[in-house]
Amino acid sequence: MAPSVMSDFSSSATARLLPFRYTVPIRAVQFQPSVSIPLTPLRSRSTLSRCCSSSAVAAVATNTDTFAKVIDGKLVSKQIKDEVAGEVASMKEAIGVVPGLAVILVGSRKDSQTYVRNKKKACEAVGIKSYEVNLPEDSTEEEVIKHILEFNNDPSVHGILVQLPLPRHMNEENILNAVNIEKDVDGFHPLNIGRLAMQGRDPLFVPCTPKGCMELLYRHGVEIKGKRAVVIGRSNIVGMPAALLLQKANATVSIVHSHTKNPEEVTRQADIVISAAGVANLVRGSWIKPGAVMIDVGINPVDDAESSRGYRLVGDVCYEEACTVASAITPVPGGVGPMTIAMLLSNTLESAKRIHNFK
Amino acid sequence: MAPSVMSDFSSSATARLLPFRYTVPIRAVQFQPSVSIPLTPLRSRSTLSRCCSSSAVAAVATNTDTFAKVIDGKLVSKQIKDEVAGEVASMKEAIGVVPGLAVILVGSRKDSQTYVRNKKKACEAVGIKSYEVNLPEDSTEEEVIKHILEFNNDPSVHGILVQLPLPRHMNEENILNAVNIEKDVDGFHPLNIGRLAMQGRDPLFVPCTPKGCMELLYRHGVEIKGKRAVVIGRSNIVGMPAALLLQKANATVSIVHSHTKNPEEVTRQADIVISAAGVANLVRGSWIKPGAVMIDVGINPVDDAESSRGYRLVGDVCYEEACTVASAITPVPGGVGPMTIAMLLSNTLESAKRIHNFK
Repeated sequence: MAPSVMSDFSSSATARLLPFRYTVPIRAVQFQPSVSIPLTPLRSRSTLSRCCSSSAVAAVATNTDTFAKVIDGKLVSKQIKDEVAGEVASMKEAIGVVPGLAVILVGSRKDSQTYVRNKKKACEAVGIKSYEVNLPEDSTEEEVIKHILEFNNDPSVHGILVQLPLPRHMNEENILNAVNIEKDVDGFHPLNIGRLAMQGRDPLFVPCTPKGCMELLYRHGVEIKGKRAVVIGRSNIVGMPAALLLQKANATVSIVHSHTKNPEEVTRQADIVISAAGVANLVRGSWIKPGAVMIDVGINPVDDAESSRGYRLVGDVCYEEACTVASAITPVPGGVGPMTIAMLLSNTLESAKRIHNFK
Repeated sequence: MAPSVMSDFSSSATARLLPFRYTVPIRAVQFQPSVSIPLTPLRSRSTLSRCCSSSAVAAVATNTDTFAKVIDGKLVSKQIKDEVAGEVASMKEAIGVVPGLAVILVGSRKDSQTYVRNKKKACEAVGIKSYEVNLPEDSTEEEVIKHILEFNNDPSVHGILVQLPLPRHMNEENILNAVNIEKDVDGFHPLNIGRLAMQGRDPLFVPCTPKGCMELLYRHGVEIKGKRAVVIGRSNIVGMPAALLLQKANATVSIVHSHTKNPEEVTRQADIVISAAGVANLVRGSWIKPGAVMIDVGINPVDDAESSRGYRLVGDVCYEEACTVASAITPVPGGVGPMTIAMLLSNTLESAKRIHNFK
């Protein structure tokens, strides 16, 4: 049985992407050979997730004419990190300010420790100063809030993250609400979400993973205005803000969720799909409109006896099937995943620039 | 030419429902006689808006077998007002508290004066105490905010409304943000909208018109969970919060707006339509899925030489055409319109109950 490995969507959350209640039917792959799709070859075959039957996989492997363009999140995140590093250096030179990100970790979850370590390394790589507080599992809510308030008042800190999940005895909402909205680089504060939803208002920060999805679309020249978009999943940290961002970019947006009666039919109407359901291979080829752009946020472990770890990671979208129908797709891993930390660095820089009125 | 008459959607706004850019094509009515629709007769013929050609109207008039059920907003708003009056009386008797609503009116717009007068009358009718401040057109932003702050601190006031639109020299956002969120009975604060958008969070107040739309659906036993819903228009005061409310009630929601390329096709997929576009007769019979429920928020003036005023009010939905396709529909006037003030009274009562912890 594969372990409960989840990606760090929230930049601070560990496992808050709730899976759908769907059971995914296994059926024959539906090829659509008559459809005209841009003929860019698959960048990396190693990302194939093998969601379909072996005969279907063989058929896909030979069907090289209809492979979707791969949206390379590693490459884009590298570009963004380079841009952030450049701006951090300019800011330091011009006004002597170094952006600072504080991370508060409570308890000793291995996955959370890994995420925090990765964030720290990413900060160092671009010249952002990182601050870290590690508190024992049995800390009180008040102790956590005390540290948040100290960071709120510390002028060298421009972004504050509380690594989630918190121990069960703590009230997450109380703790997150203590973060000064001007330093809420995760963008989860309801005030930020409200501004995201409203016409004529702008949030101080956009949540990192949905912002990363949009950045992938923008940097790949995908037109959003006037297109039909479907977001699968409606979590506070990915699905809902992703839908609001697509809506702000003038797409016609529908949200598919666990109560949607015909998710396949609704999804097939979309020119752009952002899937954040947390269900391995939920989105089959038959769900996809020919030529659609697929952004796959899911990072789901599935059993794999051939892997030394006993499992491998796959997305929400059945990759091989999608490749024959979609015009572009993000792989898992290497698609949306690397974008989250890149956007966190970008939000921290943005915060420092705003606080110091540096253009 | 019909005057610029608009309904008071926001409970405080006068004319903020921006019209779409669509031009509505005039074409023959498409009857769908094979469709089975509940056979409830039209309650009031006087609400017919005559959006189609005279021959089509004649055809509709004889086609009584396929008339949609009329959702009577006057009746429902009367029920709600009676319920509010009952609770106001109980609260006064139990703890001696009378809910209070303060309205601030700046300038001397005739329509705004009418709305404020109507709110005052509605308050009196249910036993809510109303407070009113009238300021001259050339008041400063600071003067308006001074009055808001006084009401914020006045324990006898549980709801505060600033009648919109404000004079052009004032910053609406600054002024609205001064209203204590616990007394923001209009529910327009981004913090409220954010909570509306998020799973597991609840707003303190739901904006009055969208709340009225949902109440009409609930009280007419319309099942929302799992249904496809389309909201036409995405204003901060009606469209967007209506979409968020339908989403919270587990519908699969799509928003149609001015950049939607195929509004007719998208709308025809919906089991429930809330139209808040502000365009007379935008939604023709061909836009409507047989058996759909139509909630029409638009109140649009159209020229009418037969009327003594020279115009009449019609909705966004072509009423006669919709009646032959939909299973239920709100008339204009007498549908959503009367619900806005009823919801304002309900929000004011709710606020007083929360502040005084009265269940």
